[in-house]
Amino acid sequence: MGTSLTSQQIEELLAGSPFIAFLNLRLISLDGDKKEIVMHAPMRAEFERGPGSKQWHGGPIAALIDTAGDFALAALLGRTLPTINFRVDYLRPAIDTSLTATACVRRNGRTVGVADVDVTDDSGNVVAIGRATYATTGTAR
Amino acid sequence: MGTSLTSQQIEELLAGSPFIAFLNLRLISLDGDKKEIVMHAPMRAEFERGPGSKQWHGGPIAALIDTAGDFALAALLGRTLPTINFRVDYLRPAIDTSLTATACVRRNGRTVGVADVDVTDDSGNVVAIGRATYATTGTAR
Amino acid sequence: MGTSLTSQQIEELLAGSPFIAFLNLRLISLDGDKKEIVMHAPMRAEFERGPGSKQWHGGPIAALIDTAGDFALAALLGRTLPTINFRVDYLRPAIDTSLTATACVRRNGRTVGVADVDVTDDSGNVVAIGRATYATTGTAR
Amino acid sequence: MGTSLTSQQIEELLAGSPFIAFLNLRLISLDGDKKEIVMHAPMRAEFERGPGSKQWHGGPIAALIDTAGDFALAALLGRTLPTINFRVDYLRPAIDTSLTATACVRRNGRTVGVADVDVTDDSGNVVAIGRATYATTGTAR
Repeated sequence: MGTSLTSQQIEELLAGSPFIAFLNLRLISLDGDKKEIVMHAPMRAEFERGPGSKQWHGGPIAALIDTAGDFALAALLGRTLPTINFRVDYLRPAIDTSLTATACVRRNGRTVGVADVDVTDDSGNVVAIGRATYATTGTAR
Repeated sequence: MGTSLTSQQIEELLAGSPFIAFLNLRLISLDGDKKEIVMHAPMRAEFERGPGSKQWHGGPIAALIDTAGDFALAALLGRTLPTINFRVDYLRPAIDTSLTATACVRRNGRTVGVADVDVTDDSGNVVAIGRATYATTGTAR
Repeated sequence: MGTSLTSQQIEELLAGSPFIAFLNLRLISLDGDKKEIVMHAPMRAEFERGPGSKQWHGGPIAALIDTAGDFALAALLGRTLPTINFRVDYLRPAIDTSLTATACVRRNGRTVGVADVDVTDDSGNVVAIGRATYATTGTAR
Repeated sequence: MGTSLTSQQIEELLAGSPFIAFLNLRLISLDGDKKEIVMHAPMRAEFERGPGSKQWHGGPIAALIDTAGDFALAALLGRTLPTINFRVDYLRPAIDTSLTATACVRRNGRTVGVADVDVTDDSGNVVAIGRATYATTGTAR
């Protein structure tokens, strides 16, 4: 099964959103058969929790999950979708590392899509996991 | 019942975290009896979803929820806590508005604390709601 | 604002579902203005966690939350809805008590409805809280 | 890595809880290396959503998720644990089928454990997915 968006189109959408551009999200890979997308985000000074800690605040990790899940479905549907809700579980601190988000479509239904997202650090440890629901009838602005 | 942190101490903690300072979170009110805290965040250009849309991306809204819930418990316990997990439901778009988060402690247990957070726009409409769990045994870095 | 279902119609729907009838759910009150519904469930032997503990297993509490949230929206829309997802947080054990679920509609949108549910024991203590999303375009079988 | 509970001990715990015995949960397999447990539940008349529909109500599916996740951690820790919270997403209706729950430990921390649960029907289709958090410091009654 193919995807409705090419890698280049996804990169243009990522660059086109001021917030996602600020996250510096970059597309790593896209697999239509596995309905999976992989994205990467470097640390930046504004994301630090405590001063000098080099630890990611949970907020930008949650934003990474929301966005990666959205693009896993967007790759299939040809457009980004409004988020209905999501859950994030923090498994361990993310310190002095960039982050990689692997998002997989669990359901692509007529009204609702569901994606799972695992976030790993540079050593491959899972630092957070997310599960998100999107409105497949809608179009995110 | 009082709180373990004064408003001034909370403001210092908010200012001390690079990410929260970037969110420009400001303490509006603190009510120890109701176990409730109210915070305010202005829009900033980096949070915009689509270019020129003036719409908040869901990511910074999730970060606002996580942080407000944490400080509702921090006010009682005297320190911020590691987030275990949280859920956010987006109810309507937040466009051309600042945001106000009202966080209320639902449980303050020995190992786990739970907070509910409602986020409203400048017209008082609820744009998102969050529910978050924190480790009351730990200390966030 | 009124409701699309009368109390009698809700009671008939409750009685018509084999599982809900097994839960022995009873309608206590219905408030169209507050978009709120209150339901009551007695303990029954099959719901016990440990033998002789008189403690509710979390499973039937989750079922009570799912059902009460559904009927809060059903009262407005005239039919029960398929559940998209829900979260339940257990705040304290429910021991030797019946349970009361108060469900309130947080959003009644074109494709998605959201309800909050608080579950209290006979002393009025909150034992669990739920947040659930339903497909307002669908009809539950 | 081994497990702290044998298959026989798990079966005794399943049989010992009145609610779980009512669910007719049966252990299918236990894999300590993968931190995975598989359980099976047949349909029963009391779980039916609409009369004659042969469709599982979401309530017992949620109970199955909560219980399977708990036992995935119990197998490692030697005892069942109190549930802190969980989320269930319903992906498709479960009609005229038994259910199989595959639960996998995502984190086994000092205070909190996290498990993912996939529920499949007799054709192998995923009907629901769950994510649950348990208090690893506690003991479920």
